[in-house]
Amino acid sequence: MIISLHNKSVKETAALVARKKERDRRGLFVVEGMKMFGEAPAERISQVYLAESAEKEAYARYEEKLSGLPCEIVSDEVFGKLSDTVTPQGILCLVRQFSYSMEDMLSGKEKKQLLFIILEDIQDPGNLGTIFRTAEAAGADGVIMSSRTAEIYNPKTIRSTMGSIYRVPFLYAEDLSSIIKKLREQGVNVYAAHLQGGDYDGGQDYRKSTAFLIGNEAKGLREETAACADALIRIPMEGQVESLNAAVASSILLYEAHRQRKMS
Amino acid sequence: MIISLHNKSVKETAALVARKKERDRRGLFVVEGMKMFGEAPAERISQVYLAESAEKEAYARYEEKLSGLPCEIVSDEVFGKLSDTVTPQGILCLVRQFSYSMEDMLSGKEKKQLLFIILEDIQDPGNLGTIFRTAEAAGADGVIMSSRTAEIYNPKTIRSTMGSIYRVPFLYAEDLSSIIKKLREQGVNVYAAHLQGGDYDGGQDYRKSTAFLIGNEAKGLREETAACADALIRIPMEGQVESLNAAVASSILLYEAHRQRKMS
Repeated sequence: MIISLHNKSVKETAALVARKKERDRRGLFVVEGMKMFGEAPAERISQVYLAESAEKEAYARYEEKLSGLPCEIVSDEVFGKLSDTVTPQGILCLVRQFSYSMEDMLSGKEKKQLLFIILEDIQDPGNLGTIFRTAEAAGADGVIMSSRTAEIYNPKTIRSTMGSIYRVPFLYAEDLSSIIKKLREQGVNVYAAHLQGGDYDGGQDYRKSTAFLIGNEAKGLREETAACADALIRIPMEGQVESLNAAVASSILLYEAHRQRKMS
Repeated sequence: MIISLHNKSVKETAALVARKKERDRRGLFVVEGMKMFGEAPAERISQVYLAESAEKEAYARYEEKLSGLPCEIVSDEVFGKLSDTVTPQGILCLVRQFSYSMEDMLSGKEKKQLLFIILEDIQDPGNLGTIFRTAEAAGADGVIMSSRTAEIYNPKTIRSTMGSIYRVPFLYAEDLSSIIKKLREQGVNVYAAHLQGGDYDGGQDYRKSTAFLIGNEAKGLREETAACADALIRIPMEGQVESLNAAVASSILLYEAHRQRKMS
């Protein structure tokens, strides 16, 4: 059992929790909690840390999975230092980062009409994670993000995905315009959420391959990005509301596509 | 100008920011930021605090509104102590709490079909505020909350409402069952979001007076509450998703009602 805060692997793991730079350098990210460990693909887990007080429960729930993985027991004090949460569940693992290509994202296109969400500069990790969770639920084929979007491997983002991080393909793009062009060449209709758009529920056919483009929480989409889309759409708003939360807007659009596809 | 952290009104305001008990005792809540001040109904504002460095900007934007209100200038250090945010905008005001009755909530019923959202034990202030914002945008007539729901006057909740706190009627109820009964007596169809429900987009007519009932983030609805509804409905989920974020679920349902009402 590791009881020292100065232990080398404890220090290295704390750095992974705290810093994007370390996560990218080592190609790893950190996942906390029983359920998030349970859903993590075993072949991507490089190390498990268990708090002394959680060892029994973890083995009771996940004996088979744990038995095949390198696992260190640490004191509760050490675990507290590693944990990013207020009430740690006593289990944490290091997972190898994902790497998807545009071809992965488009791989389902022979069998079905595709559905994507494209995010420009979304800043809030909670919003980003929630969008992943909703994208999986609505049957989306991937999430495409501008390089200035919040980091998917941030512990807060990971938590809000509720496990969808393991299952929804994603990629970061330096240049969203060229990605949008590529999607349109593949027959995907790209709709940009924009205050100058027509109502999103005005007869558009989202059963065809569709991508929804959502802008930054405060600033919306850049004009040059919006201009790349096939059409601008707007979620109508009553009262004095000037915009919707980015995760809310994404959800309304993704589920309108889901609703149309179910009916057809 | 107030420069002392020991000033009596500074101490009292800090207590209002920090503690629900103080907010309830004095019947006030605290609003921060230029835009939130701009949207606050002037007749409910009992006091304004301006940071020295923000005085010029505040008067440039809101001279007329500020001129009719009691206003204290405080040093930036003092303002930093009062502020709940990481990057304070230098303006903060005390606002009298709202008080709505069930009759207020139902007051539009001669003129239109009503739309409500009922929340049972929602815990996250950000979720709660986002639900208010979306409720206003979807044209809802009010938000009804169980008494164990997060506090609407929590500074985090207020911020996430983006001003909808001023415009959406709401009430807390000790007993949701009796509220649901009352709504149904008034001809409101109450739909409970529930994993055992039928698909929400399966032909229900949300153009009629409608209330959506949403449960706690982790536990969902209590069975006894769900049993009071007219029907259980479920938002279908693909992949391995077991539930949606509470604000996301609320948004999808509210906007399905909005979509149907717009078409009719």
